[in-house]
Amino acid sequence: MTRQGGPVGQHGSVHTDRLRIPVPVRWADLDAYGHVNNVAVFTLLEEARIAAFWRQDPAEAGTGVGGGQAPPTAVLDAGPGSDTVTVVARQEIEYLAPIPHVREPVVVELWLGRLGDASIDVCYEVTAGAGAARQVFVQAATTVVLLDAATNRPRRLTDEERAVWAPLVGPPVAWRRRP
Amino acid sequence: MTRQGGPVGQHGSVHTDRLRIPVPVRWADLDAYGHVNNVAVFTLLEEARIAAFWRQDPAEAGTGVGGGQAPPTAVLDAGPGSDTVTVVARQEIEYLAPIPHVREPVVVELWLGRLGDASIDVCYEVTAGAGAARQVFVQAATTVVLLDAATNRPRRLTDEERAVWAPLVGPPVAWRRRP
Amino acid sequence: MTRQGGPVGQHGSVHTDRLRIPVPVRWADLDAYGHVNNVAVFTLLEEARIAAFWRQDPAEAGTGVGGGQAPPTAVLDAGPGSDTVTVVARQEIEYLAPIPHVREPVVVELWLGRLGDASIDVCYEVTAGAGAARQVFVQAATTVVLLDAATNRPRRLTDEERAVWAPLVGPPVAWRRRP
Amino acid sequence: MTRQGGPVGQHGSVHTDRLRIPVPVRWADLDAYGHVNNVAVFTLLEEARIAAFWRQDPAEAGTGVGGGQAPPTAVLDAGPGSDTVTVVARQEIEYLAPIPHVREPVVVELWLGRLGDASIDVCYEVTAGAGAARQVFVQAATTVVLLDAATNRPRRLTDEERAVWAPLVGPPVAWRRRP
Repeated sequence: MTRQGGPVGQHGSVHTDRLRIPVPVRWADLDAYGHVNNVAVFTLLEEARIAAFWRQDPAEAGTGVGGGQAPPTAVLDAGPGSDTVTVVARQEIEYLAPIPHVREPVVVELWLGRLGDASIDVCYEVTAGAGAARQVFVQAATTVVLLDAATNRPRRLTDEERAVWAPLVGPPVAWRRRP
Repeated sequence: MTRQGGPVGQHGSVHTDRLRIPVPVRWADLDAYGHVNNVAVFTLLEEARIAAFWRQDPAEAGTGVGGGQAPPTAVLDAGPGSDTVTVVARQEIEYLAPIPHVREPVVVELWLGRLGDASIDVCYEVTAGAGAARQVFVQAATTVVLLDAATNRPRRLTDEERAVWAPLVGPPVAWRRRP
Repeated sequence: MTRQGGPVGQHGSVHTDRLRIPVPVRWADLDAYGHVNNVAVFTLLEEARIAAFWRQDPAEAGTGVGGGQAPPTAVLDAGPGSDTVTVVARQEIEYLAPIPHVREPVVVELWLGRLGDASIDVCYEVTAGAGAARQVFVQAATTVVLLDAATNRPRRLTDEERAVWAPLVGPPVAWRRRP
Repeated sequence: MTRQGGPVGQHGSVHTDRLRIPVPVRWADLDAYGHVNNVAVFTLLEEARIAAFWRQDPAEAGTGVGGGQAPPTAVLDAGPGSDTVTVVARQEIEYLAPIPHVREPVVVELWLGRLGDASIDVCYEVTAGAGAARQVFVQAATTVVLLDAATNRPRRLTDEERAVWAPLVGPPVAWRRRP
């Protein structure tokens, strides 16, 4: 897991940090054509989102998908028994190219299209390769709302959450296929 | 499986037919809170979409989800070995209320927000109850592109497809949460 | 959902009651060959097992897979927040014939191969058709252990559980392929 | 991915080679108790089995789960369009301890309990840790039958398959919970 800022061409921005989370594809994710099926892609996004933003059990410190280090943005206490519950309020996705069973894990790049009072818009590109060989298979966004577990009502982002997530804020996904 | 036209209040339209496909929820769809998890909802939509639009094997005639009759809109020949392949190009979803493990199957209502040259926008509401007790848990849309299996390029809707699907065309989903 | 006793030929017994739970197959359960994949079969078994033995929320009374009545054997209080937790200790399965996307739900027949102190062996046949056309696709068994939620230790079956489940006890699965 | 022979205590054998395939657990595999659910375990086994025995597309050479090298046992040509189709005929599993969301991938150890004319019995232990800290969560076995894709009938193992798989043959799983 690496964290990189710098030029991200298709957003025309040099200011946005992105998290890059490798997520292995499973054979069970593939459809009859040998591509990751459209529903399984949401599981890849979820896996990356949790690795990026959920705080890990101290007993599990040092982990992350693929055994890497948790990124500094993984500060959301929303596991079982914690004070916060998260709900997904909205998702949008464009499938730009089929995801094959690539030999390396796909890399889910994440940033934040919006940092709200009680919610965040997580933006993603599912990619493989680097440099000129970089491919984008999918672009997507998920609105995650933070609820107080006791009241089941939205709760404001904490100062810590806001501070560590702010560098990830960038332009939202530039949708190509909205009707 | 029933097909009904008539007043559909929240679209302010008396002209749109909708398909109503019951889809049973499985225990495996539920998350730790006893609600259908956000990824599993896409499987419910897929199940309804295929029942609504895919032609059934003649050997399987008379079926449909839950053993009902296939609707007259189920004319798309896109199974294994057929001339058409379908791909999902885009999806958008709003989770309006958690879907509990309701005792009856949820009812996925489907209509078409757009009838394109080589693609359709399938619109959905996932509901339970009827009349004053009707609840809408989810609204969503999927863009499905039809490809010629031989060339892997988009192919035009056939006259039959256009004819049987036209009555389903209505206003697209009125999104409430687009940022 | 129906409950039938009487002759069950291949077990050579006229004494065993079986539960017969219809479970719809989903398109997402199918593999590239159009058959239910070997992992998804366990989800079908789980769905039938829960419908057969788990007590339903009173608010959901009268339900069951497909909207039928809960059988009288559905007395196990093991949902979230209840005093009992169940764990699966063991499973065994033989895939006798591929399960196609049959037009009617498959029927999972269940009985008990063993009624233990703190566990039960649930036996299954996944079938379609009736009479001479009856097909058995799968035979399987699951050992379910009942734990006290407070202590996480096995707890004895209650008198009610034992009473309503006793009529389901019959010869365990006659395995054909054990090495 | 590593391959090791040597003492494997609980089988009392110093002769069996085992493959050790790391497989990351996903959040979506977890149940309400934070443990890998009993059905998802079969997906982990499948993922390891395919990495261990399926030949990789030359375009994907050098891969494997987690990006490692394919083991020398990965010689089975059973992908789409190949001459061989594989079917799972039988599975058996014992859940010895719940699998938590461990920080490192679990390690699925594989060997062969039987090398038949047209089938193999793949044996597994799902483990974490090493040395004195090694834990075994699950032991399981799968019978895989090789079919000729043209005739759909069992076909004999090739000489190459038999040669590279022979070192993996060892005592079958010692079941603890068979009724």
